[in-house]
Amino acid sequence: MAKAVIATWKMALAGAERAMNILEKGGTAADAATEGVSLVEDEPSFHSVGYGGRPDRTGHVVLDGGFMDGDTLHFGAVASLEGFRSPVRIARSLIKGDANNFLVGEGAALYAETNGFEKRDNLTDEAREIYDREKERIKNLSAYDGHDTVCFLTLDEHGTLCAATSTSGLFMKEPGRVGDTPVPGSGFYADSETGAAAATGMGEEILKGALSYAAVSLMEQGYSATEAAEAALGRLETKLKKRNGCAQAMSLITLAKDGTWGVGTNVEFPFVTGDEENGVRLWIARPENGKTVIEAYEKEIG
Amino acid sequence: MAKAVIATWKMALAGAERAMNILEKGGTAADAATEGVSLVEDEPSFHSVGYGGRPDRTGHVVLDGGFMDGDTLHFGAVASLEGFRSPVRIARSLIKGDANNFLVGEGAALYAETNGFEKRDNLTDEAREIYDREKERIKNLSAYDGHDTVCFLTLDEHGTLCAATSTSGLFMKEPGRVGDTPVPGSGFYADSETGAAAATGMGEEILKGALSYAAVSLMEQGYSATEAAEAALGRLETKLKKRNGCAQAMSLITLAKDGTWGVGTNVEFPFVTGDEENGVRLWIARPENGKTVIEAYEKEIG
Repeated sequence: MAKAVIATWKMALAGAERAMNILEKGGTAADAATEGVSLVEDEPSFHSVGYGGRPDRTGHVVLDGGFMDGDTLHFGAVASLEGFRSPVRIARSLIKGDANNFLVGEGAALYAETNGFEKRDNLTDEAREIYDREKERIKNLSAYDGHDTVCFLTLDEHGTLCAATSTSGLFMKEPGRVGDTPVPGSGFYADSETGAAAATGMGEEILKGALSYAAVSLMEQGYSATEAAEAALGRLETKLKKRNGCAQAMSLITLAKDGTWGVGTNVEFPFVTGDEENGVRLWIARPENGKTVIEAYEKEIG
Repeated sequence: MAKAVIATWKMALAGAERAMNILEKGGTAADAATEGVSLVEDEPSFHSVGYGGRPDRTGHVVLDGGFMDGDTLHFGAVASLEGFRSPVRIARSLIKGDANNFLVGEGAALYAETNGFEKRDNLTDEAREIYDREKERIKNLSAYDGHDTVCFLTLDEHGTLCAATSTSGLFMKEPGRVGDTPVPGSGFYADSETGAAAATGMGEEILKGALSYAAVSLMEQGYSATEAAEAALGRLETKLKKRNGCAQAMSLITLAKDGTWGVGTNVEFPFVTGDEENGVRLWIARPENGKTVIEAYEKEIG
């Protein structure tokens, strides 16, 4: 079987290398996705995920994460979690059992503490400085910017597809705000018999169209990974523009069960792919006349 | 335009009458859905919603609710909210704005308090007695039973479809557990150009298939409300049985833009419909050979 990974944003580059390394050694899609996301969570220079993530309106770094196993359709998710190192690891651990797979707020923290997950104050000095500066500048605070979720889709030698996500959410978000990232169907979806998808961008828009499920559903109807990503994103964007006059930023990655991948986006969107033949590569996608044009990200690599 | 309502479980009967009354007087689908759900939230004899709802593992009644406007696809949602009277009213109010539409835990409570929503301790003496008795009986507590979400789908004279939901979630759920009820796409979905859908049952199963979005997506492809409800539920049930050997309880209601409705279920499932021609009626649906058989609920009415 093909071993493959696709992940969102430039920040996923080192994580994708780690994920491909795991897959090439015969590791599982679950491990590859988790380790790829986790590496991004640990890097303080990435300001929208984990350590160094941007604070909410009250100055707290509050994290969301999700995980899905395409063999069973089981998922785990946490939202609005403060004070722990790796939301994706906690989300993945919640996949066990028939219930209580999605935990939020203090309940999620209680679970993480009870189960021995590593604690961490994710507010870095740099993030606090940015917060203090912006809070001063913007008198009427509102959620904006900084909605770059890290998403990994992985395919292992057994044909298992997994999806994993992590984010600190919108900078200056309201306390308790949840976007698409921890929500199965919207932020991520994986079905090993068809394909997987994951989304980044304005979570509230993505939730209006269950975007990741929509893409996998199209693959189930025979669309390629590329066609499904473009069509799912394009249809939701068209619908939102028609109803509300505009559509906010959304990007979508897909990975089919044969290892082929696709991207749909309505903004400039760098992403990373990996497979055994081509190794790990950085790309940039741009919307152009309702399609998504993809080019190698020359500036950064080689 | 047809004015119509469909709602989950027998407990929705009085709420459906209120909702039809609002629609018949020219009221909006949004008001009809909100008032219908809210009436169920206020009734202490219903043990799975609002006041009198069943507590979580720690003895707290913690509520979820969702609301969606089919004209704009905007939604509002709250999850893991304690101490307020009406999750559905709070969810509906969150529809405003482009962000922060889904709030959980203490953030949701902060929003509700700041915006003047009525407080209420939703733990009744009866619910506390049930909790104390079960806690004594079941040494190894686990989430089970009591997953009856109230869902209303409404269609008004302007052709607007709305969906609204409310639940106290699984009895003995883990603190912070979120099911499908507050999740757009899974617990509810509404698109005035096509149809609306909402789900009740084991939330963790419903989330595995973005069940409400799946049903509306089928209506968009030309399925009737009945066909969409049966097909969406049947496909998810088949998939879960194939992957995991079983599928837990799930029921799904649909309402098309022409006022026709449908139900899909894998358990015995009472529900309520209302329209101008037939008034408000109580039905029972049962799964039979992969289809859903629907009969008037004779025992209770007439």
